Amino acid sequence: MEINGVEIEDNFAEAFGIQVSRILVTAATKKLAKVAATEATGYGTSVIGCPAEAGIDCYVPPQETPDGRPGYIIMICNMSKKKLDHELLERIGMCILTAATTAVFDAMEDADEKFKTGHKLKFYGDGYEKVLDIDGRKIHSIPLMSGDFLVESELGIKAGVAGGNLFILAENQPAGLLAADAAVDAIKAVPGAITPFPGGIVASGSKVGSNKYSKFLNASTNEKMCVTLKGEVEGCQIPEDVDGVYEIVIDGVDEAAVKAAMKAGIEAAVKVNGVKQISAGNFGGNLGKYQIKLQELF
Amino acid sequence: MEINGVEIEDNFAEAFGIQVSRILVTAATKKLAKVAATEATGYGTSVIGCPAEAGIDCYVPPQETPDGRPGYIIMICNMSKKKLDHELLERIGMCILTAATTAVFDAMEDADEKFKTGHKLKFYGDGYEKVLDIDGRKIHSIPLMSGDFLVESELGIKAGVAGGNLFILAENQPAGLLAADAAVDAIKAVPGAITPFPGGIVASGSKVGSNKYSKFLNASTNEKMCVTLKGEVEGCQIPEDVDGVYEIVIDGVDEAAVKAAMKAGIEAAVKVNGVKQISAGNFGGNLGKYQIKLQELF
Amino acid sequence: MEINGVEIEDNFAEAFGIQVSRILVTAATKKLAKVAATEATGYGTSVIGCPAEAGIDCYVPPQETPDGRPGYIIMICNMSKKKLDHELLERIGMCILTAATTAVFDAMEDADEKFKTGHKLKFYGDGYEKVLDIDGRKIHSIPLMSGDFLVESELGIKAGVAGGNLFILAENQPAGLLAADAAVDAIKAVPGAITPFPGGIVASGSKVGSNKYSKFLNASTNEKMCVTLKGEVEGCQIPEDVDGVYEIVIDGVDEAAVKAAMKAGIEAAVKVNGVKQISAGNFGGNLGKYQIKLQELF
Amino acid sequence: MEINGVEIEDNFAEAFGIQVSRILVTAATKKLAKVAATEATGYGTSVIGCPAEAGIDCYVPPQETPDGRPGYIIMICNMSKKKLDHELLERIGMCILTAATTAVFDAMEDADEKFKTGHKLKFYGDGYEKVLDIDGRKIHSIPLMSGDFLVESELGIKAGVAGGNLFILAENQPAGLLAADAAVDAIKAVPGAITPFPGGIVASGSKVGSNKYSKFLNASTNEKMCVTLKGEVEGCQIPEDVDGVYEIVIDGVDEAAVKAAMKAGIEAAVKVNGVKQISAGNFGGNLGKYQIKLQELF
Repeated sequence: MEINGVEIEDNFAEAFGIQVSRILVTAATKKLAKVAATEATGYGTSVIGCPAEAGIDCYVPPQETPDGRPGYIIMICNMSKKKLDHELLERIGMCILTAATTAVFDAMEDADEKFKTGHKLKFYGDGYEKVLDIDGRKIHSIPLMSGDFLVESELGIKAGVAGGNLFILAENQPAGLLAADAAVDAIKAVPGAITPFPGGIVASGSKVGSNKYSKFLNASTNEKMCVTLKGEVEGCQIPEDVDGVYEIVIDGVDEAAVKAAMKAGIEAAVKVNGVKQISAGNFGGNLGKYQIKLQELF
Repeated sequence: MEINGVEIEDNFAEAFGIQVSRILVTAATKKLAKVAATEATGYGTSVIGCPAEAGIDCYVPPQETPDGRPGYIIMICNMSKKKLDHELLERIGMCILTAATTAVFDAMEDADEKFKTGHKLKFYGDGYEKVLDIDGRKIHSIPLMSGDFLVESELGIKAGVAGGNLFILAENQPAGLLAADAAVDAIKAVPGAITPFPGGIVASGSKVGSNKYSKFLNASTNEKMCVTLKGEVEGCQIPEDVDGVYEIVIDGVDEAAVKAAMKAGIEAAVKVNGVKQISAGNFGGNLGKYQIKLQELF
Repeated sequence: MEINGVEIEDNFAEAFGIQVSRILVTAATKKLAKVAATEATGYGTSVIGCPAEAGIDCYVPPQETPDGRPGYIIMICNMSKKKLDHELLERIGMCILTAATTAVFDAMEDADEKFKTGHKLKFYGDGYEKVLDIDGRKIHSIPLMSGDFLVESELGIKAGVAGGNLFILAENQPAGLLAADAAVDAIKAVPGAITPFPGGIVASGSKVGSNKYSKFLNASTNEKMCVTLKGEVEGCQIPEDVDGVYEIVIDGVDEAAVKAAMKAGIEAAVKVNGVKQISAGNFGGNLGKYQIKLQELF
Repeated sequence: MEINGVEIEDNFAEAFGIQVSRILVTAATKKLAKVAATEATGYGTSVIGCPAEAGIDCYVPPQETPDGRPGYIIMICNMSKKKLDHELLERIGMCILTAATTAVFDAMEDADEKFKTGHKLKFYGDGYEKVLDIDGRKIHSIPLMSGDFLVESELGIKAGVAGGNLFILAENQPAGLLAADAAVDAIKAVPGAITPFPGGIVASGSKVGSNKYSKFLNASTNEKMCVTLKGEVEGCQIPEDVDGVYEIVIDGVDEAAVKAAMKAGIEAAVKVNGVKQISAGNFGGNLGKYQIKLQELF
């Protein structure tokens, strides 16, 4: 199958279940909201080594937020509900409550359950906290040195999907990178999906386990897809005309969001000069709950 | 004491010892280096609830880096050496190694000791890693899907200073905020110092412990400095003409860097219209190793 | 009339007719589109001294553009059709055609007439230009060193409205500035309206003519609204509790867009701490075709 | 000659004399200074069709500016002194004076002569303007609605050099673009030099005159260097393995600055994967005053 002259490999992305939260961070200005959203979603590329997977979903203009101020919706994810509860509490408490002029609202539709994050954070007010009703939501107002921080009492979580992905195989590294940038721009317009890696892009797709250091290493470089090892490793899977490979990893509130994001990303990537092939990463289909076939997206 | 008509209170910032690392993250472009540096220093405002305190120290143009590419120096800090070792490994491994076109070099002068972070990360190469000499540094080259990631074998750490701070008391919240922004801009030009909170600014200066919830709360809002509680709490410490208070928190490689940063921040803040007073946060002098008197900075 | 405790003065903005163009600039990535849009709309605050009034209207995600790439809609305005024709040609030819990976499409609905800007630019191709049909649009493809530049053959213009405005009167300069920032963020979400001044904000509201230098000066500072002249000039119009005044100027494709932008701007500004009053600028109603009463917006 | 495996062609950039101004724009914050500097240097790629060539030279931290606030140095250039005088007046008057919290200082060393730009702008104060001495400079303070605008009375200009340039020939468009980005980042660290095109990059290198439309066209596409015309035009000058060509154009305060910028740009570009050759643009040596040979830069 080809789109725009680029081969879409007959392959699938293998994805996993994950617990997802989705919150709206508003502030006095778009820039202030971005500052808080960025801090709260940092150090959040993969639960392999980070305490959460996190990213910015989309911007919401002031006309469409509960408090009439500009905001960003962010998603924070973890395999474990308990860890997600902890991450929500700390990432909001340390990175948004502490940021200038912010407020936090629940933005998860059809939540499976609610975490009492706002309820727990209110104690920081040391008895001076108040309860407000904004737009039918129960909001805690916590007095700070700089003014009041507002946070919704309960925040919804849901069983979502992690590890949706696509591989961009290109003539060289810069072409893969530009295509990955374009893919990330397109995915940003898909609600309910994030690309948690730095700038949305993964430079280092891995394999499970290790050949040489298997005693202590759970994951290692995917040597058969490493462009600088072409000709050096057996079973190299990189086509001859490819010298740059980037991966996009996607987490979503559900499989539909991940599929829509993968489709948007692929349609954007194939428009970039020098892109040769789109593929995806999987583990033979034995590990993950979801198998998203690339060719069935179209 | 007054500077530019603004009172500098006869007060001191109480600061603590902390273990500090300082590394240079380079990439193909300034923007790509910024993306990696931002991801690696996120979720890093305070060790009260974050796994590290982290921030961007400064930009380094390509003319001045070991690999001739643009880069950002970042600092990652923790009270415990063991935790800092872990944070360095994960923040570099998950947020920089995974980012497009990056490399990591040690940027700590006069290190107390070295962590073998690069040495440990090399195993990700699964036997395909190589050792290079760049500019007299021992560098591990790890093959990735997108190319090779370079990381210096050992990264220096040092006993530094955390919790340097200043309070900006202003006529209202926006004046405090603009002054805080100006202070952060000035501190960015001081090498060896970071402002780890979101955008460099703290909206929520706290007190140790809690009056009402002392059984389970270690820190709570500093109600005597909360602008919306003026007239509501006893012993309010906010001057009558002040309705906006922001704090800047500074971590540095040593006391001199923290002092230089505090001085630069104060000189910038007092230039902003509506700023009334500069103060600092302390705990009576009993908790922290360092007492940095504001008036002695000038 | 008060909104959120802020007085909306019983006053009106006096606005003028202007010729408006509205085009979509797409590129390989959102960032590349922004670079071109920014260059093309620079030096475009007011036709008093700039060759055009220009600004970015809004971002359009790749899913909604004719070529499936991300883009920004920009507006370029001039009182004279002839000058607007020239500005469109030069700003597109010098600032967008020259920018990396760009294309230009018409984005003006219900145009009064069409300029043959694309048709004229095609000659740059020196005979190697081609005609394409994209989404039913006639597009010229012009070969460049870096690839092909696409531009729609005809671009629509329309009689629009310039000089819609609002004054934000605040306790001090930072409060006025933060409120102006918030107003600009809100106006960005209103289609068909731009705020052409730097960052969308005017620091220097003027009066027609001059008292002291009337022989050679057509416009001069509005001394009765200058915060540093309070007490120094007769007839000062600044309330006693106001020490910071910023103006937002709005150009729109029609009066409805300007009104929607003014309304959105006011609703955002009054949410900011320290804002005391909203007013607007007029010249007694004798100069401009449009009188937009603030209180009738709500 | 090869650098990093990339051929540096035995060619030269042909450059021209131009009149250059260089001013420092400061503001309350780095961001506000950037907003003003960006607006004032927009619509300034080439005097072929823009009223000036303009760009940001470098950032100056608050510690190093006359008023202790952060700032950007910008350069504005024109072939004609008279036009430059006009451009300085309008770009400062319309794009910096109107911007929030700004001030303007001369930043041209060894000026040939001085323009009385500040002296002329002061009349906007309508008699309320004052003269200040800041750091030994004569400064006009002009009252605005938002506060006072400061501008140095006289601004230095100098005979500089325009049209320094380099061509980046790469395997494809994205590789050329990434290398051009890297080159621009490196040139930003060279004082006294700007890259006036959008994002510093030229997508559309041209030839003098036109073959087909010579009656009305002074410049047209350089068809022998157009990647999409390979095989279609006679005398194609693009190597077989090249499919992406970008140009960097540089203006400087003198030939040394332009040479340093070209050298820095080349050294950065050759580090990018997929770059095949560096060349430069000239007109046979008959038009421009300066011939800067690429190989002599090293």
